[in-house]
Amino acid sequence: MSKNTRADIDIQVANELVRRALMSCGANGDIAQSVAASCIDAQREGSDGGGLGGAIDYCNALRAGRVQGSLPHRSERPALALFAVDAAEGFTHPAFDAEFEALCDTTREVGVAVFGLRNGYASGSLGYYVRRLAERGLVALAATNAGPALVAASGSKEPVFCTNPIALGVPRDNTYPLVIDQSSSQTAMANLRIAADNGHDIPDNWALDSNGQPTTDPAAALNGVLLAFGGARGANVALLVEMLAAGATAANWSLEAPSYIEGEQSPGTGLLVIAIHATLLAGPQMARRIDDYLNQLRERYGAYIPGERRAANRDRQTDSLSVNTAMLNALRNLAGAD
Amino acid sequence: MSKNTRADIDIQVANELVRRALMSCGANGDIAQSVAASCIDAQREGSDGGGLGGAIDYCNALRAGRVQGSLPHRSERPALALFAVDAAEGFTHPAFDAEFEALCDTTREVGVAVFGLRNGYASGSLGYYVRRLAERGLVALAATNAGPALVAASGSKEPVFCTNPIALGVPRDNTYPLVIDQSSSQTAMANLRIAADNGHDIPDNWALDSNGQPTTDPAAALNGVLLAFGGARGANVALLVEMLAAGATAANWSLEAPSYIEGEQSPGTGLLVIAIHATLLAGPQMARRIDDYLNQLRERYGAYIPGERRAANRDRQTDSLSVNTAMLNALRNLAGAD
Repeated sequence: MSKNTRADIDIQVANELVRRALMSCGANGDIAQSVAASCIDAQREGSDGGGLGGAIDYCNALRAGRVQGSLPHRSERPALALFAVDAAEGFTHPAFDAEFEALCDTTREVGVAVFGLRNGYASGSLGYYVRRLAERGLVALAATNAGPALVAASGSKEPVFCTNPIALGVPRDNTYPLVIDQSSSQTAMANLRIAADNGHDIPDNWALDSNGQPTTDPAAALNGVLLAFGGARGANVALLVEMLAAGATAANWSLEAPSYIEGEQSPGTGLLVIAIHATLLAGPQMARRIDDYLNQLRERYGAYIPGERRAANRDRQTDSLSVNTAMLNALRNLAGAD
Repeated sequence: MSKNTRADIDIQVANELVRRALMSCGANGDIAQSVAASCIDAQREGSDGGGLGGAIDYCNALRAGRVQGSLPHRSERPALALFAVDAAEGFTHPAFDAEFEALCDTTREVGVAVFGLRNGYASGSLGYYVRRLAERGLVALAATNAGPALVAASGSKEPVFCTNPIALGVPRDNTYPLVIDQSSSQTAMANLRIAADNGHDIPDNWALDSNGQPTTDPAAALNGVLLAFGGARGANVALLVEMLAAGATAANWSLEAPSYIEGEQSPGTGLLVIAIHATLLAGPQMARRIDDYLNQLRERYGAYIPGERRAANRDRQTDSLSVNTAMLNALRNLAGAD
């Protein structure tokens, strides 16, 4: 059976499978349920890597001790609209879930609130956090970093940032929210490996070689450093994300963070989410007005609206998920292994 | 006398000159003082275009009626931490100044606050707003849009966004704050004109021609549309800014905004500023830790830290400003013309 073979699986069955696999690897029930929900959400969006693949990564991280599966996070409210969370080397999803209703309520009451997490594991899809807030009618902005450092700063020849995604969620009337969710790097490390495996050149703006020179050779790039998208301006976006995610939360800088994909230590990631009750600024027609605008952008100007493909996948896969069978089998093995 | 001749002028004299020029063109005393302060700040940073040049642009906009110089802005507090401002077709600076102390106090008390302005004139340097908040120890993020539309969306061949800058200000210990302040476009329209005047080609990622094709011909680009920096990801940053600046404030979309450089109508710009009392999340050592990190980025990794040149200019020009004499003479004429 090819590793690209796919199978359909009932969504509840898939959720239960992921939950049991996480528990077999050391997560307690609440934590496993929260993390499984995020994986199933990513799979619904059509992402094998974030879906069942993400679940396998999480299982491996639990077994290696890079993420704690049973310690509770610690939460403080140092001010009315600030949620300060120490994830205790655990997942970010259960900590976010635990504060989610209070975060929504506070944002509605005060107008804006901030969830700032440190000492966490890699956050998975950043769109997941902002979309959930946008589904409650809130405008949400999020930033996260993680280790290891992979991406150069403006002017640097060595990696200092992780891929540092930024995400925005905005409510629309009549349809799913707008979700912008993108990394600050021009490409992912995985794409260098694919090019190297296939003997293909890469574009000269993807990476620098170990001498700090632009390269089209994927092997040289794998020994070098990823570039941010869009040159110095994109590198500044990576720095902006680093400041919000790690500077404003006292999380590990990407530079000092242990890897989230190998070793036994927690990456100590930071995650900052800002939620704004913007209808109080823009008026009750805000979501309608944004929906009209985005429809105009697409229909009259031919613009690509970020996130629409993922949202359409989610709409379609409400009962049953299309999954990679190799990943499915790997999870079945993990789930049966306790 | 060459148009590039420069003169030194006492900073108080320059401020008074700008203030009088604005009043001669229809601004009342409070509004003129607030706008003049922002121009002098930009000139201190070494920006002729934002400094005395900005003052001349504002005078022209006052005379043409694109900006109101005497109507008070209207301010509401629809929630404890939201400042909702209708600029009444006026400048953004006086409205921001009027709310600044309350914005700082509220951010300290609640942990975060948002200033959302609609119906304004072009905001000038966005770094000005976030830097002032960072000087008070707050982490600040800002976004603004304006008309006319100049920049393509991802996939569009026509302009839909203005240059849509985003800015972040972060406090540092011992030195001026970090200020990231950059537009979402790959270049400014002015650089197309300079290339056209000098008969130079432009890079093929600056603009599309009127057929929606990349071009190296500046004349073709001037009939076409500017591109965002960094392809689709940069265009998404422009969309993110549009959502924060206009979607969350009910300001004019760049698409529907009259020009801020010609005509008689207000561009109806939006400006959103988020201020976060992040030391409550990150601890009292936050500014020290950020300063150490940025020093390490520069000294050990050779990274370019955005805004340091401007900050050094400001440090140097505390008493006397180096200004373009043609601009100085133009302002003297404007100031004497009432």
